[in-house]
Amino acid sequence: MSGDLTDIPASARLAELGLELPPVAAPVAAYVPALVSAGQVFTSGQLPFVAGTLAATGVVGDEITPEQGYDLARTAALNAIAAAASVVGGVDGIRRVVKVTVFVASTPGFGGQPQVANGASDLLTAVFGAGGNHVRSAVGVAALPLNSPVEVELVAETSFDPF
Amino acid sequence: MSGDLTDIPASARLAELGLELPPVAAPVAAYVPALVSAGQVFTSGQLPFVAGTLAATGVVGDEITPEQGYDLARTAALNAIAAAASVVGGVDGIRRVVKVTVFVASTPGFGGQPQVANGASDLLTAVFGAGGNHVRSAVGVAALPLNSPVEVELVAETSFDPF
Amino acid sequence: MSGDLTDIPASARLAELGLELPPVAAPVAAYVPALVSAGQVFTSGQLPFVAGTLAATGVVGDEITPEQGYDLARTAALNAIAAAASVVGGVDGIRRVVKVTVFVASTPGFGGQPQVANGASDLLTAVFGAGGNHVRSAVGVAALPLNSPVEVELVAETSFDPF
Repeated sequence: MSGDLTDIPASARLAELGLELPPVAAPVAAYVPALVSAGQVFTSGQLPFVAGTLAATGVVGDEITPEQGYDLARTAALNAIAAAASVVGGVDGIRRVVKVTVFVASTPGFGGQPQVANGASDLLTAVFGAGGNHVRSAVGVAALPLNSPVEVELVAETSFDPF
Repeated sequence: MSGDLTDIPASARLAELGLELPPVAAPVAAYVPALVSAGQVFTSGQLPFVAGTLAATGVVGDEITPEQGYDLARTAALNAIAAAASVVGGVDGIRRVVKVTVFVASTPGFGGQPQVANGASDLLTAVFGAGGNHVRSAVGVAALPLNSPVEVELVAETSFDPF
Repeated sequence: MSGDLTDIPASARLAELGLELPPVAAPVAAYVPALVSAGQVFTSGQLPFVAGTLAATGVVGDEITPEQGYDLARTAALNAIAAAASVVGGVDGIRRVVKVTVFVASTPGFGGQPQVANGASDLLTAVFGAGGNHVRSAVGVAALPLNSPVEVELVAETSFDPF
């Protein structure tokens, strides 16, 4: 259930948006894509993979424009939603988004991380409605795994308890 | 109430320090300054805005000295306290600080992030007394939104429940 | 108690691995190494100190190889386990690891943060078994405190409540 903060289930909003949750990539190491703890679902940092391939590499402010960064943050956020959904019985098991951290590989002097991070924030609002309101930190970092331009992690509330 | 960890309300400590909580800046995108989830209040990453203007721009280790960084981290932390207070009925609705993350825009080779982050930590201790004890990560990053030298995010406990 | 996710206590696994938890370094400022909030234990960002000395300084991709970074992340994670254990009555008071963030001081263009972060992830799995499964973000940053190559922070579940 999408809970009492939205009247339209997130699954219906995804369909309206013409979006499908992608399959969740298996982590390349001893960690998991998402897990539930104390009523919250936490995701690992998600990269903008599309069908198993990183959609772009490089640094925003250099090879990657802020507009491309926006799209990549949206893609990474869709993967984060998919990771969270995979451990709470589907996307409607996410009651409410709590926190998003968007790491943006940035050249020194590039200050447009909020514009990039909006790709994640706008998607969350579109998918979860009022339940998509979240706190956010957007940070410009030196480099990200596999030279990804962005990495997105998510904390959300869930009523689903796997135990 | 400031809870059982302090005997002096945070509001009284603020007054003693001659500090007023600044107005909370409206985020420039689809997110919120702070929210309550499961007894904790989370803030968005806060910049050192003073009266709507970023107090400084640049990188610590270059244009910005560590001492200036300390002051800017203190200012950003005051904004974080204000953001948290705005969703828990005022500063006395913050029962106890849990975690602070201080991102410091840093030149490669600058290792003085703890000194900068102390600006946030010292303010939290001054305002919340024993309830101001917190865990902290201080990290040097390539760049921050609007070329801010610092960004501070906060997690705290609250007894306030908006639902 | 290690809880219902592992059958072997973490203390026994540590002994099998020939590891002892190091003493917890006193923070150099107004914060604490770890604290318990709402059933979770949070640690401050931990550096790869060994017997009070930083095991290495420098940036991965430059002076520090990824293999050295792996070892340093493992050392920092051991310090994080020690910090968490110190506030929950020992390592067996950690019921389950939730989240690990690994900050890796990185040259621009270095994308091997996952390989470095595996030093932390592999140790957590070795020490906590099934209870060591965790979500993870690995991020490459410009610089870290004292020019440390890595910094590791931990969130875990605990059944220990100090209040």
